[in-house]
Amino acid sequence: MSFIDRLDAAVEGKGTPAMVGIDPHLDLLPEEFSTARDERVHRADRARALERFCVELLDVVADRVAIVKPQSALFELLGADGVRAFESVCAHARSAGLIVLGDVKRGDIASTASAYAEAYLSPDPKSGVPLCDAITVNPYLGRDTLDPFVDVCGETGGGIFVLVRTSNPGSDLFQHHGNPPLWSAVARSVDAVGERLLGACGYSSIGAVVGGTHPRELAEIRAALPRTCFLVPGYGAQGAGAEDVVAAFPDRARPWRGAIVNSSRGIAFAWRKMEGVHWKDASSVALDEMIAELARVLETGRT
Amino acid sequence: MSFIDRLDAAVEGKGTPAMVGIDPHLDLLPEEFSTARDERVHRADRARALERFCVELLDVVADRVAIVKPQSALFELLGADGVRAFESVCAHARSAGLIVLGDVKRGDIASTASAYAEAYLSPDPKSGVPLCDAITVNPYLGRDTLDPFVDVCGETGGGIFVLVRTSNPGSDLFQHHGNPPLWSAVARSVDAVGERLLGACGYSSIGAVVGGTHPRELAEIRAALPRTCFLVPGYGAQGAGAEDVVAAFPDRARPWRGAIVNSSRGIAFAWRKMEGVHWKDASSVALDEMIAELARVLETGRT
Repeated sequence: MSFIDRLDAAVEGKGTPAMVGIDPHLDLLPEEFSTARDERVHRADRARALERFCVELLDVVADRVAIVKPQSALFELLGADGVRAFESVCAHARSAGLIVLGDVKRGDIASTASAYAEAYLSPDPKSGVPLCDAITVNPYLGRDTLDPFVDVCGETGGGIFVLVRTSNPGSDLFQHHGNPPLWSAVARSVDAVGERLLGACGYSSIGAVVGGTHPRELAEIRAALPRTCFLVPGYGAQGAGAEDVVAAFPDRARPWRGAIVNSSRGIAFAWRKMEGVHWKDASSVALDEMIAELARVLETGRT
Repeated sequence: MSFIDRLDAAVEGKGTPAMVGIDPHLDLLPEEFSTARDERVHRADRARALERFCVELLDVVADRVAIVKPQSALFELLGADGVRAFESVCAHARSAGLIVLGDVKRGDIASTASAYAEAYLSPDPKSGVPLCDAITVNPYLGRDTLDPFVDVCGETGGGIFVLVRTSNPGSDLFQHHGNPPLWSAVARSVDAVGERLLGACGYSSIGAVVGGTHPRELAEIRAALPRTCFLVPGYGAQGAGAEDVVAAFPDRARPWRGAIVNSSRGIAFAWRKMEGVHWKDASSVALDEMIAELARVLETGRT
């Protein structure tokens, strides 16, 4: 089954478009995982502590969300040992029935892009399953550099989410360059390459990253890309609320459909704002709140 | 010493701005490394064969070039085992006196960008040396996402090369978007952030990737960025010749200064175009030719 149809069914099953980002920032980990940030400790042991935190976090959220997004940078920080932890975390997520979106933001030319696509989306020769169900892709090098990813997605049933409009404060400088802005040109390319991989659900396995911190543009990009599933980052710690992301969801009849909304630090490190609460309980409470908030605006908050 | 001053001295010492890309495409490896592409073999053994090829290639070129550019994608293809090989290849290059430019094309927001910068440019707690001397960075997310890399470079004496104008056929679509084109806005940001890290040689440790396949723009970008060192990809297999890259070098008195010119497949896989020649001899001949061609145009070919 195509990535987008698997995602659509999984979101339908869980009843929420909430996604949890697995961003194990060393400095923010609970004390019981402090080995991960101890530079005197062997790197493999640090990576094991990092992995243990991520696995426990996955177990907290697995029954309530369809999809999780591990952030590669925070694993790469521990080199090959960290990448091994990334692989274990992705495998654990899959075994818990979760869809895995690897936040790797790769992008390169021709055969190099193919290598990235294969690395993350092609089945491993031994296990027969790919490392990730989908990954994020950076479009700066051009539409021709998206094609190798789309080709691999077509062969393997994987997906990509192309950066269109990111959630950081300075994203305007280049993404809003020109008139019409660059993001609109990138969006057109996403729509064009996505046509090759339309799923039965009506959306494409080629998605777009559109930050929740630009609510007006979110509506504009949604109107321009009716068949594109959006990954909406920026919820929670980065400042976007449920009202800000509602424009990503176009379907009144099936309000969950068409986007996934990510919170990373707001879930994983919720304990830092809840004194005396165990980190897992804090994450669980924060996730319940996010799911309830999204449900409220999706069911009643449409204008 | 800053990255750019180390690079400047090393290029001066070797007498050439030629750089060799270490891009171990599995399908192109000589037969003696065919284990690397054999999917029936354990991944760790495949990665060891990949590593062996790269180490032998480094030994072929180490006496003649100042800097090499391992391509991360082709190592990531073999997962954590491949990343371990990447680490060994980088360490071997350093031990052979080479400067290591990791072609990773990373880019992300805020603390995530910091994690990437630390992963590649901060000293390892055990060995005391960083994985790479410099890396390539993708600017799509905005100038604010370059700052964490620049901060780490300032602390560690590392460098980055920001993608401005890439060498692939479709790079115009986004990089030439708008009027003035996007690349000029990116170039301005590179110049601005680079000011913080000017070396004694007059160039900055914040460089730019400017493809050799757009010779007219190369001259225009050079005029706009007088203090920026260029990484010029596209030489050889991608179609750029020595005449096409000469505009990257602004200094008549010291003609090697101001840019490094990369050839990957043209060196590593030269044997595929030289029947009956051992792959190492073919690589060696191809590198000599590249160095001689660059010397010819830099010494005599300026207009």
